[in-house]
Amino acid sequence: MTKFDEATQAIRVGETLYDVCLDDGYAIGGPLNGGYLLAAVLRAVVDASPYEHPVSTAAQFLRAPRPGPAQVRLEQLKTGRTVAMTRATLVQDGTAYIDTLVTTATLRPGDGEWSAAPAVAMPPLGECVSLPDPKPESNMTLSAQMDLRFDPPTIGWLTGAPTGRPESRAYFRMAEPQDPDPYVLALAVDALPPVAFSAGARGWAPTVELTWHLRALPAPGWLTLIGQGRSIRDGWFDEDVEVWDSAGTLVAQSRQLARLGRG
Amino acid sequence: MTKFDEATQAIRVGETLYDVCLDDGYAIGGPLNGGYLLAAVLRAVVDASPYEHPVSTAAQFLRAPRPGPAQVRLEQLKTGRTVAMTRATLVQDGTAYIDTLVTTATLRPGDGEWSAAPAVAMPPLGECVSLPDPKPESNMTLSAQMDLRFDPPTIGWLTGAPTGRPESRAYFRMAEPQDPDPYVLALAVDALPPVAFSAGARGWAPTVELTWHLRALPAPGWLTLIGQGRSIRDGWFDEDVEVWDSAGTLVAQSRQLARLGRG
Repeated sequence: MTKFDEATQAIRVGETLYDVCLDDGYAIGGPLNGGYLLAAVLRAVVDASPYEHPVSTAAQFLRAPRPGPAQVRLEQLKTGRTVAMTRATLVQDGTAYIDTLVTTATLRPGDGEWSAAPAVAMPPLGECVSLPDPKPESNMTLSAQMDLRFDPPTIGWLTGAPTGRPESRAYFRMAEPQDPDPYVLALAVDALPPVAFSAGARGWAPTVELTWHLRALPAPGWLTLIGQGRSIRDGWFDEDVEVWDSAGTLVAQSRQLARLGRG
Repeated sequence: MTKFDEATQAIRVGETLYDVCLDDGYAIGGPLNGGYLLAAVLRAVVDASPYEHPVSTAAQFLRAPRPGPAQVRLEQLKTGRTVAMTRATLVQDGTAYIDTLVTTATLRPGDGEWSAAPAVAMPPLGECVSLPDPKPESNMTLSAQMDLRFDPPTIGWLTGAPTGRPESRAYFRMAEPQDPDPYVLALAVDALPPVAFSAGARGWAPTVELTWHLRALPAPGWLTLIGQGRSIRDGWFDEDVEVWDSAGTLVAQSRQLARLGRG
C-alpha cells in the first residue's frame, strides 16, 4: 500500500458510514487539496457500490476540513443495472465539509469509438520543468507527493511573465512509484496551480464546485494534464482539466468553478 | 408571465418544500427534457436563497419523472457572505427523480476580465436551418417551445450525412418571446440534439450527470449554443455546451455525461 493509498483509506464503520484520516501531507498552504479529499470520499463510495469505478463525481466545497479524523456519510440514491448513484458527504465533528453526488459503474477495457486530440501539444518531458521546492513555512506539503513537470510558459507567472491566458499544463506522476488509478486521477484533476495565475491572478483560489468524469482506466506511466479556462469574470473563473494517459487516451475530464484570489 | 415561466413555477409550501407542476409540453419522446426539469428545481432553490442567481448546478438524473405534480425538497448546506449552497431534490410520489447540488450567488453586471472566443464560428442566422416539425406521435413537444436554427452540417445526421465528430450547434430563442434569463439558460444547455448523433450514434441518450455554470447574465436576443464532445467510449459520451449571448459574452457552460443510445 502506498502512502497515497493509506492517506485515502476509508474504513467501514457502519452501513453508510466510513472513517477516514485526513493527512497533513496534502496541504496547499492552509487547506488540504480538494482532489485528495475527493479521493478519500470516493474510496468509501466505491467500497459501498456494486460497481468498481467512480465514473462521475460532482462536489461542492462547503468548508475546508482540518487534517485528522473525519467521516464519509453515504446516502444510496439509486442502484440500477449499469450504474449506482450515491450522495457522499465528508463530515468532521458533525459538520459537513464537502458534499458530493457520485455515479459508479464498471468500465471495461478496450478501444474507444471516437476521441478528440489534446487541445495543446506538450513539449517532450525533457523540456519541461519542475517548480522550485516550496518554502517549509508555506505549508505546501502536497508538492512532495507529486512529480509535476510543467510546460515552461505556463509557469511563467512565477517569474513575472504570465502568458496572459488562463492555462496550466504538466506531466504528472506520484512521487512514490504508483500506477495511476481512479483515485490518483481524482488528485490529478486538481493538482495544477490555478489556471488563473497564467492570466495574472494571484492568491488563494478556493474551488466552489468541481465535477470530474472518469472516461477510461489509465495505463501505467506519466499522465499529461492540460488545463485551461474559458472566462474570468466578476470574481469567478472556470478551470477545465483533461488528463491523458501514456497511451494517449483521455482518461479524465474535469471542470471546476472557483473564486479569484484576493491576495 | 410566459408559458415557460409558468411551467417552471415553484410554489413554496413549507420552509424547505416547493410544489411544481411538470408540464407535458417539454417532452422529448417519452421523458421530459432535463434542462426544463432543472429550471423548475432552480426556481425553488433561488426563491429560498438570499442570493439571486444559480451560479453552479450539478445534477444526477436518477429516474425520468412523469408530467404532473411534483415537489422540490431543499436542504440548506451553507449560507456564506458571497454564496449559498443547497441540495435540491425533485420528488414525485415520495421517490427522488433528480438530485442536485446548487451554488447561488449574486452576479454583477459589467465587463469580464478575460474571455476565450467560441471554439467554432457560426454561419449567419440566415444560413442556418430549422429541423422539420416532429411527427405528433413522436411526442417531441419540446420542439414547439424553442426556436432553434442549426449550423447545417451539424444536423447532417438527419439525412444520413453525419459529420463524423460529436458536435451540435444552433442559434436559440424561446418560441414565445422572452428575454433569456438563468432559467432559460438551464433549458438551453440541454436543448441541442445529442452531439453523439453527429458521430453516427442514434437513439435515446439518457443524461446521467449534468453540471452547468452561469457565468454572466444574458443580454436580450438570440443565444448561440456550441456543443461538442471529447470522447465516446464504452457506452458513454460527454457533451460540452457553451452558451454565448447576443453581445458575444459566454453566459453559460455545461458538461453532461450520458449513455449512448441503443436504438
